[in-house]
Amino acid sequence: MHIFFAPDITDKYYSLDEKESRHCVKVLRMKKGTIVNLIDGRGSLFEGVIQEPDSRRCIIEITSVTNDFEKRDYSLHIAISPLKNMERFEWFIEKSVEIGVDEITPVICSRTEKPGIKSERIKGLIISAMKQSLKTRLTLLQEPVNFEEFINYVNSESLMIAHCSNDIDRKSIKDTYKKGEDTVILIGPEGDFTNDEISLALRNGYKSVHLGKSRLRSETAGVAACHSIYFLNQEESIPEQKH
Amino acid sequence: MHIFFAPDITDKYYSLDEKESRHCVKVLRMKKGTIVNLIDGRGSLFEGVIQEPDSRRCIIEITSVTNDFEKRDYSLHIAISPLKNMERFEWFIEKSVEIGVDEITPVICSRTEKPGIKSERIKGLIISAMKQSLKTRLTLLQEPVNFEEFINYVNSESLMIAHCSNDIDRKSIKDTYKKGEDTVILIGPEGDFTNDEISLALRNGYKSVHLGKSRLRSETAGVAACHSIYFLNQEESIPEQKH
Repeated sequence: MHIFFAPDITDKYYSLDEKESRHCVKVLRMKKGTIVNLIDGRGSLFEGVIQEPDSRRCIIEITSVTNDFEKRDYSLHIAISPLKNMERFEWFIEKSVEIGVDEITPVICSRTEKPGIKSERIKGLIISAMKQSLKTRLTLLQEPVNFEEFINYVNSESLMIAHCSNDIDRKSIKDTYKKGEDTVILIGPEGDFTNDEISLALRNGYKSVHLGKSRLRSETAGVAACHSIYFLNQEESIPEQKH
Repeated sequence: MHIFFAPDITDKYYSLDEKESRHCVKVLRMKKGTIVNLIDGRGSLFEGVIQEPDSRRCIIEITSVTNDFEKRDYSLHIAISPLKNMERFEWFIEKSVEIGVDEITPVICSRTEKPGIKSERIKGLIISAMKQSLKTRLTLLQEPVNFEEFINYVNSESLMIAHCSNDIDRKSIKDTYKKGEDTVILIGPEGDFTNDEISLALRNGYKSVHLGKSRLRSETAGVAACHSIYFLNQEESIPEQKH
């Protein structure tokens, strides 16, 4: 079933915005009576029926709602350096949203080569990935912030910095993170964090972690970190659903 | 340090092939005396010195070798359906090689939409990703094979089929796979495996696994499966290296 984004849904009737209306009526050619899903980005999944298939303002009647749809019992915040290659950064965004991440902060580090990000474009990618993977909570994209500032103002139950420096002991995330914990994970730029940055993080309560012995690109490290937390929080089994 | 691919290295002197020679001498402008790394795709990492920077046949003198460089004590074979979007399939290849995979077989399933792959192009991507991530073992790319044939002729210590069917119990990989085991993981096409395919796999010793509750694209599922095995095999800690 097709999913539309309805961030400001409050009523029994909802008008899709112009972009979603055009997509629904012109591209997908949906008619009156078609059943669709809506997500509000705040945890709810709605089912609705198209009442007025207007290509600028398509009106949907809401027929049911599931609140806290597949709510995770942990929150994950990934702070990652912007990358030189924007496509690789965008790939990290798509994949981490698909797997599951609550908040992403671009963090400018000493070795960050290209500090900017295209926020509007990335917000669009987050919405697409959220719809595609049937997530109901919108990943929050923060504005870029300096490393020191981030270390000073952000807190969580569990704080980790993933790095490759051989000068500092590192543990696996599986031996550092406990299932259910809210966590922040820092991922460095192409040339990694400096030892000074790592020391600053450790003095502020961060734990030093590795992502295995493979030499991973930054965007792969970001996805690997996201998947590590997702994996540790996975339920043991998903039983057959009786019909 | 730059890494070159030297698949047929046997001697104290090695001539890079034409492509690698051109890259070394014309693009990177390396001179006589530059120290470089070579990998043979069979587990060895070499250090060498450029003796003749010829752009068609660059000669390197080998000065040292490390056999079984960062050898993994498990082997991972991912069998995955080719995807409609070739770029997404190629992305799976790059990321899984970077994380670590020994063998990849494209498996044609009932719901595979586009059965072909561009083998030569993918072999090139595997070599690039291997060099970039400092892997010394070349991931073996098999020719595409039908699902039934694959199930019948491939074996391993651990066999898993990852799918989304609600009609069959599924366990997490973390509750199915044991560290150190050689394993085969099957990943389906965009529309997933059919129940018949899953049943056939189960009758042939495969275990039914899930990759969590997120609705993942096939290529993301492939990377998630690869990372699950990598993550479970990670050493607890990497200690500081004394200088």
